[in-house]
Amino acid sequence: MASRIWAGLLWSSFFVVSLSAVAEGGQNIEDFVQKRPACKAKYFKQKLDHFSFRKQHVFEQRYVVCPEEWKEGGPILFYTGNEGDIMLFLNNTGFMFEMAKELSAMVIFAEHRYYGRSIPFDGKTLNATTLPWLTSTQALADYNDLIISLKSIINGAKNSPVIAVGGSYGGMLAAWMRMKYPATILGALSSSAPILQFGDTLPCNTFAQIATRDYQQASQTCVDTIKRSWGIIADLWRTQDGRDWLKDTFHICNALDNDKIKMEDFRVWLFAGWTYMAMTDYPYPTSFLKPLPGWPVKEACKFLNDGSHFQTDRALLKGIFKGISVYFNYTGAVKTCFNLSESSTGSALGEIQWDYQACSEVVIPDCTDGKTDMFYSRPWNKTEYAANCRKNFGVKTNFDAALREYGGSNLKYHSNIIFSNGQLDPWSGGGVLTAPSPTITVILIEDGAHHLDLRASHPKDPQSVIAARAQEVGIIKRWIKSAQTVENDLDDTW
Amino acid sequence: MASRIWAGLLWSSFFVVSLSAVAEGGQNIEDFVQKRPACKAKYFKQKLDHFSFRKQHVFEQRYVVCPEEWKEGGPILFYTGNEGDIMLFLNNTGFMFEMAKELSAMVIFAEHRYYGRSIPFDGKTLNATTLPWLTSTQALADYNDLIISLKSIINGAKNSPVIAVGGSYGGMLAAWMRMKYPATILGALSSSAPILQFGDTLPCNTFAQIATRDYQQASQTCVDTIKRSWGIIADLWRTQDGRDWLKDTFHICNALDNDKIKMEDFRVWLFAGWTYMAMTDYPYPTSFLKPLPGWPVKEACKFLNDGSHFQTDRALLKGIFKGISVYFNYTGAVKTCFNLSESSTGSALGEIQWDYQACSEVVIPDCTDGKTDMFYSRPWNKTEYAANCRKNFGVKTNFDAALREYGGSNLKYHSNIIFSNGQLDPWSGGGVLTAPSPTITVILIEDGAHHLDLRASHPKDPQSVIAARAQEVGIIKRWIKSAQTVENDLDDTW
Repeated sequence: MASRIWAGLLWSSFFVVSLSAVAEGGQNIEDFVQKRPACKAKYFKQKLDHFSFRKQHVFEQRYVVCPEEWKEGGPILFYTGNEGDIMLFLNNTGFMFEMAKELSAMVIFAEHRYYGRSIPFDGKTLNATTLPWLTSTQALADYNDLIISLKSIINGAKNSPVIAVGGSYGGMLAAWMRMKYPATILGALSSSAPILQFGDTLPCNTFAQIATRDYQQASQTCVDTIKRSWGIIADLWRTQDGRDWLKDTFHICNALDNDKIKMEDFRVWLFAGWTYMAMTDYPYPTSFLKPLPGWPVKEACKFLNDGSHFQTDRALLKGIFKGISVYFNYTGAVKTCFNLSESSTGSALGEIQWDYQACSEVVIPDCTDGKTDMFYSRPWNKTEYAANCRKNFGVKTNFDAALREYGGSNLKYHSNIIFSNGQLDPWSGGGVLTAPSPTITVILIEDGAHHLDLRASHPKDPQSVIAARAQEVGIIKRWIKSAQTVENDLDDTW
Repeated sequence: MASRIWAGLLWSSFFVVSLSAVAEGGQNIEDFVQKRPACKAKYFKQKLDHFSFRKQHVFEQRYVVCPEEWKEGGPILFYTGNEGDIMLFLNNTGFMFEMAKELSAMVIFAEHRYYGRSIPFDGKTLNATTLPWLTSTQALADYNDLIISLKSIINGAKNSPVIAVGGSYGGMLAAWMRMKYPATILGALSSSAPILQFGDTLPCNTFAQIATRDYQQASQTCVDTIKRSWGIIADLWRTQDGRDWLKDTFHICNALDNDKIKMEDFRVWLFAGWTYMAMTDYPYPTSFLKPLPGWPVKEACKFLNDGSHFQTDRALLKGIFKGISVYFNYTGAVKTCFNLSESSTGSALGEIQWDYQACSEVVIPDCTDGKTDMFYSRPWNKTEYAANCRKNFGVKTNFDAALREYGGSNLKYHSNIIFSNGQLDPWSGGGVLTAPSPTITVILIEDGAHHLDLRASHPKDPQSVIAARAQEVGIIKRWIKSAQTVENDLDDTW
C-alpha cells in the first residue's frame, strides 16, 4: 500500500510505502522454486484494454501455479497481485500455502499488470503514453479472464470454487473481484485493504493518527518527543549552521541547501521511517527491504522514552536519530550516510507505476496536522496534488474514481467477503470495520500490523492473529461447502 | 434488440431488429415536449474512456429529465437507453410515467453513447477508428457517472433511491447496472432482456423456435405453409424464369440476379417480416416503423390458414406474399415495389453502431434449422461471422465477452432485479426464466410480446400484463421502503 506525498516541488518518489512487498526470502523465481518445487511460473496472453475494441495490444501476464496440495475439483486460492513483482507477494503470503493444505487447494499468484515481469509495450519506457491502461478495473478484468481460462484448461478445475486473497492494495483487488465478478469469485479474503480511504470519507490524517496511537502504546513520552522534534528541526533549518548540524547528526549524504533537498523532504524521510515501523510492527524480526527487529515501534521508542535525556533541543534530535535508525539502519549496514534521493523501499517495487496509479485512479487523501497526530502541519492539497500529477504524467487526477467505481462504504448488497484488519496498522482506519451485510465478516486483529494474517505462521504470533487465521479458514470452508452443496442439488434436479 | 444475420457475402445491414424502437409517437424532442412539457433534454460531458487515463476525449451525452411527478427525496426511475435515439425509447416506455405517478418519482431517460445525439468525435465518421469505445461496459460507466453527478446537483436528490429500467438491450443494461453498480442502483426492472443468449448457453435457433410457436398458436397450418415456402422458393430460384416470377409476385424492386441480391437476402427479408411480427405481436395496433394491426401474427396467418387454397406451389407463395405484406405494407403505402437493400426498421436506429456491438461484445448466436423451427437451414457459423466483422470493422469478435464480463447464468449472488419476459416474445428464450436468488423476481407475461409491460397502459391490454405491471410496481415500492427504513435506522443510530 502506497502513501504518496509531494514535498513542495520535489516529486518524492522515494516514498512508496508498499508493505505488501515485505519479503520473507528471495525475490527470484529461482530462489522460490528451490523452496517450493511444485510451483511453476507461467505467462498468459492478456488484452491491454478489456473495455474497448481498438486494434488490440496484448502483453504477457506472469502468474505462478502451485498445485502441490490440490485435489481435482478442489478449490483455487487466487492471490490478486498488487503493486510489485509477484514473487515478493508470493514470499510474503505464507498463509496461502497453509490454507491450501487444509483445503486441498491449488494456489495461484497472479502478477498485476505493469509490475514485475508483466509489463506491456515490451521494452518501451513507462510514461504518459504507455501507462494509461494501468488501472484497477483493467487489472480485475485481467484476473477474471485469467481465472476463466485456467479453469477451462486445467484438468478437474472446471467447477473449482475460486477464493480471491490479497493484502493492502491486493486486498482491495480481492474484495473488488468478488464485488464485480461474483460469478467467477466465490468469496474474498481482503486483508488490510483501506477501501474506504477515498474521497472525503475519512479525515485525511487517519493514517497518521493510527501510527501515533501505535507509538502511544509504547509510551506517551515517545509520542511527545517525536511531536517536539518537528519544531526544533524547523528552527535549525533556518540557518546554514543549523542545517549543517542536522546533516551531520542525521548522517545525510545530500547537501541540505533548500534548492535540492528542502526541509519537507527531510521531514517526509522521517515520517516514512516512523510510519513504516508502525505498519510493520510485527512481533518477530522481519527481513524487510531493510531488516527490522520484532516490535520495531517499541524498539525505536526505547531511545525516546525518557524525556529527561533531552535536556536540550539538540540532545532530543540525537535521540530522534537513534530512534529513526531502527528503521533505516538496524543492522548498521549504512556506514557512511543516508541518501534522501533514494527509495526507502528498494527497487523491486514498481514506483513509477504506483505513482501513476496514485495520480489517476487510486487517490488516497493524505495529510498530518500535528495536533491529533504526532507529526506536523502538512495539509491535503488537492490542487497541488493534481498539478504535480499533470506535470509528471500528463494525467488528470480523478479523485472520486475509486468511490464511483466501487461504491465506497455502500457495501450492503455484497456478500462473501472477509475484511481483516490489524489494529496496529495505520491503514486499518480506512478498512471496513463493521460488517455491512450478513455475509461479510469483519475481523479485527488486536496485535496485528499490516496484513499480518497473510504471513506464514510463526512461533511468536500473538493469539489474536492465530484466532483470525482459524476464523478465516473456517469461513472459507463454509463458502466452499455451501457452493458445492448447491452444485450437487442442481446435479440431482437436472 | 437486434438480430444480425449475414446473408452470404452481403452485409445485411437492413436487418437490425430493434423492437425497442417501436414508436408510440414522434421521435423529436419537440414532439415529445408538446406531450410532456415538464421534460427537458440536457447534455452531460462524458468521458469517452472510463477505464484508461489516456488524454481524455469527451462527448456530450444527451439525457431527458422529467420531474413532473417528483417529490423531493423521492425515487428516480432511470431508463438505461439502448441502441437508438433516446426519444424512441422515451415515446415507447409509457409505463415509466405511470410508475412515476405512483411513486412520486423523477423520470430520467439517458441516451446510450454513440446513438441518437450522443455521438463522440463530433462529426467524424463512425468507423473502426472511432467506434471501439462503443461497449456496454463503457455505457454502464456513463450511466453510473451521470447518476452520481445528477444526484449531487439536483436539490433534494442526494439520497434518492435509483431504479434502473430498460427493455431489450436496455433491459440487459438495467440488470447489469444493478449487478455492477449496486451502490448506485437500488434495483432494476429488466424487461425482455435475453442476458443468457450468449456463448453456447442455448440452442442458436431459440429465437426462431419461439417465433414458430407464436405462429403455431395462430394455427399449425400457418406454420406448415410457411415451412413449405422455403423449398418452393429454392426451386424457383434455380431458373431465370422462376426468379422473374418471384420478383413480380413479391413486388421486389431489385433484380434477383445472384450477384446483387442472392436467394439468402430474399429469405432473410421474409424471415425479418415473420419474426418482426412475432416480436411486436401486441394486442392493439401499433405505429411501428411501419404501422401494424393488433395481433399481427394472427392477421398474417389469416392468409395462410387454409391449406386447400394452395393447390400449387405458386399459389402457396401468393399466400405467403399476402401474409408477409401485413408486416411490410399493412396500410398499402408501398404502391410500387419493395427495395431489399433498404432497412426494415427505418433510419432512426443506429444500425452501423449496433452492427459494431454485435461484432465485438454483444454477440448473440443466431441460426435456423427448418426442423424445430418453421424456417430453413441457416447454421450459426462463427468463422464466417468473425470474418465478416473483421472485414467490415477490422474488429476481432469476442464471442465470450458478455458471458465473462457479466457471469452468464450464474446470478445467485445478485439481488433486487425483476426479469420480466413476454411468452410471445422470441427473445424470451434467452431471458432469466427461473429466479436465481430470493431477491430476484421472474415475471412471465403469458400474452406479452417484446417488453409489452414497459408500454403505456392500453384498454386492450391482456390481464397478464396488467398483473405484471402491478407486481413490478409493488416490488419496486418494497425496495424503496426497505432502503429508506435502513437510512432512517442509520439516522437514528448515528
